[in-house]
Amino acid sequence: MSLLVAVTWETQPWVERFKRHLPGREIAVLGEDFDGSKIRYAATWGPKPGSLDNLPNLEALFSLGAGVDHLMGYPNLPDVPIVRVAQDDLTYRMSEYMVMHCLMYLRDHARFAQAQREKRWEPDRSPPIASDVRVGIMGFGVLGQDAAVKLKMMGFDVAGWSRTPKSVDGFKVYSGESELDAFLARTDILIALIPLTPDTRGILNRSLFKKLAHDGRLGGPILINAGRGGLQIETDILSCLDDGTLKAATLDVFEKEPLPEDSPLWSHPRVTVTPHNSAVSEPEATARYIAKQILRYEAGEAFENVVDRVRGY
Amino acid sequence: MSLLVAVTWETQPWVERFKRHLPGREIAVLGEDFDGSKIRYAATWGPKPGSLDNLPNLEALFSLGAGVDHLMGYPNLPDVPIVRVAQDDLTYRMSEYMVMHCLMYLRDHARFAQAQREKRWEPDRSPPIASDVRVGIMGFGVLGQDAAVKLKMMGFDVAGWSRTPKSVDGFKVYSGESELDAFLARTDILIALIPLTPDTRGILNRSLFKKLAHDGRLGGPILINAGRGGLQIETDILSCLDDGTLKAATLDVFEKEPLPEDSPLWSHPRVTVTPHNSAVSEPEATARYIAKQILRYEAGEAFENVVDRVRGY
Repeated sequence: MSLLVAVTWETQPWVERFKRHLPGREIAVLGEDFDGSKIRYAATWGPKPGSLDNLPNLEALFSLGAGVDHLMGYPNLPDVPIVRVAQDDLTYRMSEYMVMHCLMYLRDHARFAQAQREKRWEPDRSPPIASDVRVGIMGFGVLGQDAAVKLKMMGFDVAGWSRTPKSVDGFKVYSGESELDAFLARTDILIALIPLTPDTRGILNRSLFKKLAHDGRLGGPILINAGRGGLQIETDILSCLDDGTLKAATLDVFEKEPLPEDSPLWSHPRVTVTPHNSAVSEPEATARYIAKQILRYEAGEAFENVVDRVRGY
Repeated sequence: MSLLVAVTWETQPWVERFKRHLPGREIAVLGEDFDGSKIRYAATWGPKPGSLDNLPNLEALFSLGAGVDHLMGYPNLPDVPIVRVAQDDLTYRMSEYMVMHCLMYLRDHARFAQAQREKRWEPDRSPPIASDVRVGIMGFGVLGQDAAVKLKMMGFDVAGWSRTPKSVDGFKVYSGESELDAFLARTDILIALIPLTPDTRGILNRSLFKKLAHDGRLGGPILINAGRGGLQIETDILSCLDDGTLKAATLDVFEKEPLPEDSPLWSHPRVTVTPHNSAVSEPEATARYIAKQILRYEAGEAFENVVDRVRGY
């Protein structure tokens, strides 16, 4: 029985880890020679068309990341369980990203970095304190809640929004369409962590940005999107930055990735671009997680974190 | 009875807050006309020589910040209790600074900021995780412990060093001269939060940097000093950055402040300079704290956080 590694990245670190955590199993790599009929499992991210075809004995697909939208457009997606990598490591990385960028806005890091470049000792007499700043986390699942706990511990005033009603200790969680406007109206920093589905595509647009709080201590609302690029309308982000509807944006994901060199986002003075690295799957922890799922399954137990194909996540 | 505000900063925001929190009292300002014999309290930071003289009825001095070394060199320092501003707000700000800068190093923010300037989509395939990075906090008092708890919650491997033995739940605390080397040898990011005393002046020097861990995931040891500039030898920091003894440094404090325009620290590619703003006293919370101390004292209770002049903090 074999595991196929079907990624467009460098495969070496992945193959090495899978071999270590699944000793004695054959690990095949897309692009090399292998017998498709022997493949029982495939670990993949953004598979190219054709790369998951001709695997008649496939029993499960593992998505090498928290989201699965990269698989949903695959033509003739094999009809087997899709297992999401839901591991603490990815969650913690995402929270690091959110805490770091919220602190950089709270402390106006860009201003002091600029002052350093100009060799200027910039006074800082009445900075806002964290509890003055309202962070709103749109998408209050595992990732959103972990970020919420950590942002709250740093002192921020944190609330969540969820598609369906949710009760989470220590947080006000707004829910559904009916409470979205109230959630946005109390939000200075909007963190988008919702999955990309037909319902959420393009949701981060001008009409939503206009509803964010404009009376906060940061001089205007700020967007942080590390969910999926398909959630955002980049022309709206740019025009809202320019007319004051948004103060700043930190974007880890884009309509098109890699972000094209001619995108004005790269050089906008109030945009921070990161290369979809907010929560990079670390091969070691990911391989360990997938090996654990395979061993569970072969022992007769169910996979954990199986994707609901109708809901899309 | 009056309170004298003796600072070299803009006094307006301070006077306003003191008036609000001490209604009915006279608030005098250095540089304006006032009757020195009516001053019972003075709130000060880095007072110029002479500014605390001729106050025959002074009963207490309040230091507008966590440290008091700025007072210790004052000639003929009035022989009254010196009360440190020890408020949660300052502690939280310092922790924000530490968490933000440690995360920026963990996530190699400088590399991605540079990639953005070059419009380059930089791959990030095997970043270290927080638990791979050993943070060492030198000075494990109120500030150090709060930072420790928050850094640990973000996943870092945190230990402390204290002059005197200390037992703090959840942390290994090294203590005294005898355990300093072991503490340094397990430290990838050194955070200096010790008070400036004759014993600690210049302690952040080449011989100490050489003892830091050189086998860590960040490619070399990193110094974060937001304690006092007098702790550090800047020529050693620069030469250690250049010969690889240090990988990077984040400095909020300097031998001379404001940092002179001709200091090579400003433009060193691996130095982050901030203008002594890690934990700025926020007038509102500080005035509230000092008013509380005055009211306690006048009700017959003792001041809190009185400085031990022999120990120097």
